[in-house]
Amino acid sequence: MSGQTTYADWIAVDWGTTHLRAWAMVGGAVKAEASSDDGMGALDRDGFEPALLRLIEPWLGQGRIRVVTCGMVGSRQGWSEAPYVEVPKKPCDLMPVQAVARDQRLNVMIVPGLKQPAPADVMRGEETQIAGFLSTNKDFDGVLCLPGTHTKWVRISAEEVVSFQTCMTGEMFQLLAQNSVLRYSVAGHDSDQDAFADAVSDLISRPEKLAQRLFSLRAENVLNGLDPHVARARLSGYLIGAELASTKPYWLGQDVAIAGTLKLADAYAAALKTQGVIARVYDAAPLTCAGLARVHAALTESV
Amino acid sequence: MSGQTTYADWIAVDWGTTHLRAWAMVGGAVKAEASSDDGMGALDRDGFEPALLRLIEPWLGQGRIRVVTCGMVGSRQGWSEAPYVEVPKKPCDLMPVQAVARDQRLNVMIVPGLKQPAPADVMRGEETQIAGFLSTNKDFDGVLCLPGTHTKWVRISAEEVVSFQTCMTGEMFQLLAQNSVLRYSVAGHDSDQDAFADAVSDLISRPEKLAQRLFSLRAENVLNGLDPHVARARLSGYLIGAELASTKPYWLGQDVAIAGTLKLADAYAAALKTQGVIARVYDAAPLTCAGLARVHAALTESV
Repeated sequence: MSGQTTYADWIAVDWGTTHLRAWAMVGGAVKAEASSDDGMGALDRDGFEPALLRLIEPWLGQGRIRVVTCGMVGSRQGWSEAPYVEVPKKPCDLMPVQAVARDQRLNVMIVPGLKQPAPADVMRGEETQIAGFLSTNKDFDGVLCLPGTHTKWVRISAEEVVSFQTCMTGEMFQLLAQNSVLRYSVAGHDSDQDAFADAVSDLISRPEKLAQRLFSLRAENVLNGLDPHVARARLSGYLIGAELASTKPYWLGQDVAIAGTLKLADAYAAALKTQGVIARVYDAAPLTCAGLARVHAALTESV
Repeated sequence: MSGQTTYADWIAVDWGTTHLRAWAMVGGAVKAEASSDDGMGALDRDGFEPALLRLIEPWLGQGRIRVVTCGMVGSRQGWSEAPYVEVPKKPCDLMPVQAVARDQRLNVMIVPGLKQPAPADVMRGEETQIAGFLSTNKDFDGVLCLPGTHTKWVRISAEEVVSFQTCMTGEMFQLLAQNSVLRYSVAGHDSDQDAFADAVSDLISRPEKLAQRLFSLRAENVLNGLDPHVARARLSGYLIGAELASTKPYWLGQDVAIAGTLKLADAYAAALKTQGVIARVYDAAPLTCAGLARVHAALTESV
């Protein structure tokens, strides 16, 4: 690597649909951090390089620097397509794809996502989080849950992603809480833990009741003045309960770890606890960076 | 009633959250029709009378005219609250509530909605459609399904609404098809009937699979080029299938009628047919007007 850059040996980038985050790195250590709203969804193909430069220009020197990226930047609508790699696959063995940059200082590499032919499923970005998770949990043999807009349930054995399943629970919650008739009846952020746990258990034992339970939140509010904070906890519980009903083969009798923003990860842990499953919780924030650092290290060794 | 009005003996009004529709009536016959986007959601309390006058002014004469309304106009956020009446109740016996109007030509009556304490549920507007349905199906003893943004399943016996259940299926479909990540993978309007029926059956037999099935539409499109028209039919089938799983006590072994826009009513009929239930389909368009005409006739008789 060039020693002529100002702040960084290399740069790590997490480039999702709605956000762009970058870290100035020296080895595995973060020296600076920056982010913007220039997610993949807001950019056309020619917009990626300028968006990246706007963010990392202060970290660039005269020399060429490696920029290791992951996420939707590698999708068909991204900077350059990094085709999905089929599972089973070790995420730390994924070979990044080079993206064409006009600025000669940039050596941009994109980590590919993973695909599963049947049942059809895809991930982009989470494979790098998983690589980061495995860097400090090398012998993990079980299921890693990555809750978020699109929650991933991932079977891991011998450092390989064996299979995975995506649930749109986070997106459904946002749509229902903010854009549906339920927006008049749910409010707040802090969860009523008992209401949440009861709703989870209700839906796991009767998943067919989801369609009925949702509107009941509105009706209970209109007729009986149901507290919107309780309604919000129930909505979250119904949707996570429905997800757990759908993903039972992933957590029943398994060693389960959860990596996400701590609040959401704790909610999933509480939901699993209603079913007698004790899951370990990890903060996902450093995992992407740790995963990208593994890719950078592997590229450096192979040079 | 005054004989001095220009076009109408009375005026029928269906006032929902997003739309306002009015009919100039002579007895039970429609003489003219008008509509606007001045739904309840777009108006504050003082906005209702002007919105109505903008629409029906051409039909007014010198005299006082009765305007019979139903729908969200009677909600707490409406023109004047017409409190919910508890089931069991004959919808044609509902006593409308008078709303205060400044314009002396207007005699505005609002039909109240129905409520069910447990499981908590409410309807506004559908009670009038049901009254209209019963005007030509007096001896109906079974379940009436009113599909729409919020589908109602209604047990009817001896002209009474005995119980009912609301499902947000229509709203969920709109949100997922237009606002979620699935919007990139679903398209079109005409349904693939086989894909729809298979998705319905799949979800009725495995309702716990909903969370998994939804994202599969995106993944199948990305990996295998799933036709967005087929994906749309499946999305509709998964959601209606989940609704049928939730409402099974309403249709299993029951005499079922469906009243809605014909395309949506046909979809529900096709979904029920996968379960061996043959439902009669009715066009809902004239039902509200017919129901309001019954209220008008009852008020006229009681004068």
